[in-house]
Amino acid sequence: MSALMETILDIAGLPFSSIPEEAYETARLSLYDWLICGIAGRDEPLACKLRQMVADEGGSLTASIFGSSMAPARAAALVNGATSHALDYDDTHFAHIGHLSVGIYPAALAAGEETRASASAVVTAFLLGAEAAIRVGVVLGAGHYNRGFHQTATAGAFGATVAAGRLYGLSRDEMRAALGLCATRTSGLKSQFGTMGKPYNAGVAASNGVECAKLAKLGMTSCEDGLMGDQGFVVTHADEWGREVVSANQFLFGDISFKFHACCHGTHAMIEALLEIMPQLSGKTNQVKMIALRTNPRWLKVCNIPTPQTGLEIKFSYRWLAGMVMEGLNTGAFDTYRDDLATSSVLADFAEKVEVIGDAGITDMQAEGEVIFEDGSKVAFSHDLAQRPTLSNLKQRLQAKGAAVLADNAALVKPVMEEFASLSAADLGLIARKQDDSGNN
Amino acid sequence: MSALMETILDIAGLPFSSIPEEAYETARLSLYDWLICGIAGRDEPLACKLRQMVADEGGSLTASIFGSSMAPARAAALVNGATSHALDYDDTHFAHIGHLSVGIYPAALAAGEETRASASAVVTAFLLGAEAAIRVGVVLGAGHYNRGFHQTATAGAFGATVAAGRLYGLSRDEMRAALGLCATRTSGLKSQFGTMGKPYNAGVAASNGVECAKLAKLGMTSCEDGLMGDQGFVVTHADEWGREVVSANQFLFGDISFKFHACCHGTHAMIEALLEIMPQLSGKTNQVKMIALRTNPRWLKVCNIPTPQTGLEIKFSYRWLAGMVMEGLNTGAFDTYRDDLATSSVLADFAEKVEVIGDAGITDMQAEGEVIFEDGSKVAFSHDLAQRPTLSNLKQRLQAKGAAVLADNAALVKPVMEEFASLSAADLGLIARKQDDSGNN
Repeated sequence: MSALMETILDIAGLPFSSIPEEAYETARLSLYDWLICGIAGRDEPLACKLRQMVADEGGSLTASIFGSSMAPARAAALVNGATSHALDYDDTHFAHIGHLSVGIYPAALAAGEETRASASAVVTAFLLGAEAAIRVGVVLGAGHYNRGFHQTATAGAFGATVAAGRLYGLSRDEMRAALGLCATRTSGLKSQFGTMGKPYNAGVAASNGVECAKLAKLGMTSCEDGLMGDQGFVVTHADEWGREVVSANQFLFGDISFKFHACCHGTHAMIEALLEIMPQLSGKTNQVKMIALRTNPRWLKVCNIPTPQTGLEIKFSYRWLAGMVMEGLNTGAFDTYRDDLATSSVLADFAEKVEVIGDAGITDMQAEGEVIFEDGSKVAFSHDLAQRPTLSNLKQRLQAKGAAVLADNAALVKPVMEEFASLSAADLGLIARKQDDSGNN
Repeated sequence: MSALMETILDIAGLPFSSIPEEAYETARLSLYDWLICGIAGRDEPLACKLRQMVADEGGSLTASIFGSSMAPARAAALVNGATSHALDYDDTHFAHIGHLSVGIYPAALAAGEETRASASAVVTAFLLGAEAAIRVGVVLGAGHYNRGFHQTATAGAFGATVAAGRLYGLSRDEMRAALGLCATRTSGLKSQFGTMGKPYNAGVAASNGVECAKLAKLGMTSCEDGLMGDQGFVVTHADEWGREVVSANQFLFGDISFKFHACCHGTHAMIEALLEIMPQLSGKTNQVKMIALRTNPRWLKVCNIPTPQTGLEIKFSYRWLAGMVMEGLNTGAFDTYRDDLATSSVLADFAEKVEVIGDAGITDMQAEGEVIFEDGSKVAFSHDLAQRPTLSNLKQRLQAKGAAVLADNAALVKPVMEEFASLSAADLGLIARKQDDSGNN
């Protein structure tokens, strides 16, 4: 069997005691973040359509759906994956080249509810699933992504399979069969970007994971090594592969990058860098003569709309976003990005002062530059998203994100921060289902 | 939009009046064949496991399951696709490089039951879905298959989407969206061959088709051209493509090759050739000195087991099967292939007389050779599976297949031959569900 398959089977079977506390805590924060994204996305058109389909199907009410009732686990995972990815405000893992929480947490939650697991077991299953997905994503590599595949979905489904399979109690052989079935079941193309097909991909990954784990538990057989064997998933879906597989006990999930701004990820390093120097600019923002920003050239085609016309276009405009930070607007809240903000004369004037320069010497997770004042003085800024924040910093920022995105409903997710040890998967399901902060569902 | 996508949308919208009667009649015979395969496969372990999963899920009882109750359409399509492919006794379309009925009929039947369609509308939707799937399969070509993909599943899902979409009444734009969603949903690898993953692939195709059609009906959006557009299905899943697309009004389904022998397809041309000369051999089979068989070299590695040890191995043994034809055994019935048939001294003696020669000058659908008698006289034989039989011959042979495979239960499928015009999709569902010939279900 391949090193990749062996390693993933090792990961799937790791005892709780061998999981580093930091990895576990980061996964718990990811759960908090995922719930925010799912609750915020529950009224998106895509979410409503998928809910409609599974509501028409009905069935046993074993797994919760964001903002709704319950459904069979496969169906709930499909809806929740798509719903939580609908606003594209969820986490990114750059080595995996994709989003982890939206493809894997829906499978972990659904399987956790079905098996009456603790919330802690859900987080553990998610974390191990994420570690598996990262390894598949890394082996598939940029070639897979550039060929047109969407790692969030393709590699994500293997993570969802591990997470669900862990909770359903699969043996090592059953887990191997589940991963083999996943190899023939998983799919996902980047050509869906910009359509409802993109978040759908995340739901598909989650649902496939639940299905393959269930079928393996029922005794379905599959090929020996669905990942790296002859005509396995990797060799059919990538032109190059073979990067060394990171061993099971080295945790990679901690490199996860949470989104704290409701705009294009390519603008985040700039926003963070400017926020960091805001104390030094206090009271002087009206004396700014120029902001010189250096960013990786790849972003120039993505998020450098010079004069946005809509709220959506603002999310892809360095010039507008720089001014918004200077003006103290909350870039973390969706309702900041109103269409009429594109007509703001204050921001239009400020945009004239921002110069964006492509610089191949910095990575696509970095931003650098200088704020130059009318008196000739300068303040340099720089930020690298690859630098891990501390857990307490992450926690604080995620709580601010919850408040910005969910407003009054932020209370819904509070227990994940404050009383996690006592929570069950059923409690997490209730958080997802609740419609408002009145406590009704 | 690409010629492939345009053509498939044209096909999906063809009025019944423009469908040639022969194509329609062949599709009706394919329904008969598919029902035989599904009823025969209902007790296979794989079928039971999938039924278990969807029974646990429950839900609205809108679509029939082979040998069981009803389930939501997506679930029924999943189970029925796998169940009907479990015995590998279903039809093959060589240009499409796959099996058509098992991926598409389950979607057509489920959608037909949900929309209270006539049996004729189910056959029409299947036929148009099959024409779409063939075109996708032809464009994907041998390169897709050789890379490791299973056209039955991958191209089949597009056919299932067209079939279900036609019955759900999708507009042209909705059908385009459904096909776009299918592009990101469809999957299937050949590495599953020899495991339960192979028939699972057919169920996955059918279920994906139902899901994508339903979601498009609910207004889900997708990319402009999921098949041939940038990072669409074809360009991501094949290294070469671009074969000319056959126009919408030229029907290709008639090239379908039904299986009349419950053994490897590579042996069928030989069996047919020998059956054709049996009248000339009457009473002289004990005077056979030698059978010289010429077959395409690719089959030598597939179905030339010289001395089979089990019933399963007999299915891949030219030498044994030649003797079985001479002895008048029914190669169309599963129970002929008992393990103890491998110990038959009569067949073992006969096998010594059979010489199998690879001949690159004949196609993999052909067999040629000579029966040489002890007195030196010879009878030549040859058969080409590519030659279309007449409809009446097909009908007769399929009825014989039904009798051989289903025995007393053959009565179940009789209405498809004898009173089709009066049947509804619900009647077809009842045929699939029925457990025995007592009329109970």
